[in-house]
Amino acid sequence: MQIAKVRGTVVSTQKDPSLRGAKLLLLQFVDEEGKLLPGYEVAADIVGAGLDEWVLVSRGSAARIASGNETRPLDALVVAIIDTINIDNRLLYSKKDQDR
Amino acid sequence: MQIAKVRGTVVSTQKDPSLRGAKLLLLQFVDEEGKLLPGYEVAADIVGAGLDEWVLVSRGSAARIASGNETRPLDALVVAIIDTINIDNRLLYSKKDQDR
Amino acid sequence: MQIAKVRGTVVSTQKDPSLRGAKLLLLQFVDEEGKLLPGYEVAADIVGAGLDEWVLVSRGSAARIASGNETRPLDALVVAIIDTINIDNRLLYSKKDQDR
Amino acid sequence: MQIAKVRGTVVSTQKDPSLRGAKLLLLQFVDEEGKLLPGYEVAADIVGAGLDEWVLVSRGSAARIASGNETRPLDALVVAIIDTINIDNRLLYSKKDQDR
Amino acid sequence: MQIAKVRGTVVSTQKDPSLRGAKLLLLQFVDEEGKLLPGYEVAADIVGAGLDEWVLVSRGSAARIASGNETRPLDALVVAIIDTINIDNRLLYSKKDQDR
Repeated sequence: MQIAKVRGTVVSTQKDPSLRGAKLLLLQFVDEEGKLLPGYEVAADIVGAGLDEWVLVSRGSAARIASGNETRPLDALVVAIIDTINIDNRLLYSKKDQDR
Repeated sequence: MQIAKVRGTVVSTQKDPSLRGAKLLLLQFVDEEGKLLPGYEVAADIVGAGLDEWVLVSRGSAARIASGNETRPLDALVVAIIDTINIDNRLLYSKKDQDR
Repeated sequence: MQIAKVRGTVVSTQKDPSLRGAKLLLLQFVDEEGKLLPGYEVAADIVGAGLDEWVLVSRGSAARIASGNETRPLDALVVAIIDTINIDNRLLYSKKDQDR
Repeated sequence: MQIAKVRGTVVSTQKDPSLRGAKLLLLQFVDEEGKLLPGYEVAADIVGAGLDEWVLVSRGSAARIASGNETRPLDALVVAIIDTINIDNRLLYSKKDQDR
Repeated sequence: MQIAKVRGTVVSTQKDPSLRGAKLLLLQFVDEEGKLLPGYEVAADIVGAGLDEWVLVSRGSAARIASGNETRPLDALVVAIIDTINIDNRLLYSKKDQDR
């Protein structure tokens, strides 16, 4: 999975019927030092992630494993909202600090 | 999914028989600031996207999930025509503005 | 799918038995302006593509969808020989012109 | 598979229910000369890898092959802790030396 | 598939039980002009490839198609040892010349 920050939303009415009800988030990738990277991904959300939260995004067929997404033509899915990231026993990110 | 702009079409008569009737669009990727990127993808279209429209493209096995494509050797599919993209509560793209 | 030009062939006798009879082409990728890119792919051919022809190549599990390839460990397949590519209503490529 | 070094952990409480109990490691890729690369991957661990160990990471649908992961939306998995890497009959890496 | 040169081996004792008996080769990618590229892949071998040989490597779910690998969490597989590569009717590589 990759670490990404929720930057926004993508809305569409003319789409594959299976995608009705799917919430699509625009995610920007974050590198292993916590900096925003140029790449992005539009992913379906099943965990209720909000703007600016850091999430884990799974890509490829993994996006269709979660319940309700099996028959949707998705290739990216937000699978978790990140609480903490520790690198070399040092706290890189904490949702608690971010929310203050 | 990635955001892309419909730039054109690809036509082929000598192809895998399963691809008969599939409309193939040439898409150019768009970055998270709305600029055209150098990369492109040729994708089947199931939503009736037209020239210059912004769409969502799914890649990999997702391209064969939609009805009618299960047995086609596709690795990219236009799954939605984008109405709006919002980033940091700011409107990045609106189809309505584009159509004027 | 990506657009690629047939540059050559790869021959192997010591291989997975399932690959017997599979014709393997060396393809070089072409960008959306028609220029050769540095990347290449070795792909199985099911449409009879010849040297210098422009083709569409599907990658990933799509390569095993076409009849006869289901049990071959392939990750790339030539699925179509391109007749024409149109970008912004302008003809970028025509096989007819190329064949002259 | 790619070679990677275990750099840390990612913790999440709000996630797809199937991910409960999955240990998520932050891995940094290592190149074929043993140097750390900028890219990283967050992967589930099934082999008990510890901080600073070098591991093999499988990506894509391979991440869901191992027992217990079939229904988890994972796209990366630590499948082995590396003992030794030999390149051109020269020892590039040995876990034993690293552990001293 | 990509063209790669066998550079070495990776050995692991602590691994997913399904990987017991799998031989893991370290491959370095070769470009379409025959030069070594910086990227590498660790792949299972089913064709008995030896050091310095040029091989074809399949990635993704293709790695689990070959007999005996169906339940192994592999994402890369050596599927063929290359005899010859021809580009533009010119011999780029011949195993025979290499073996002298």
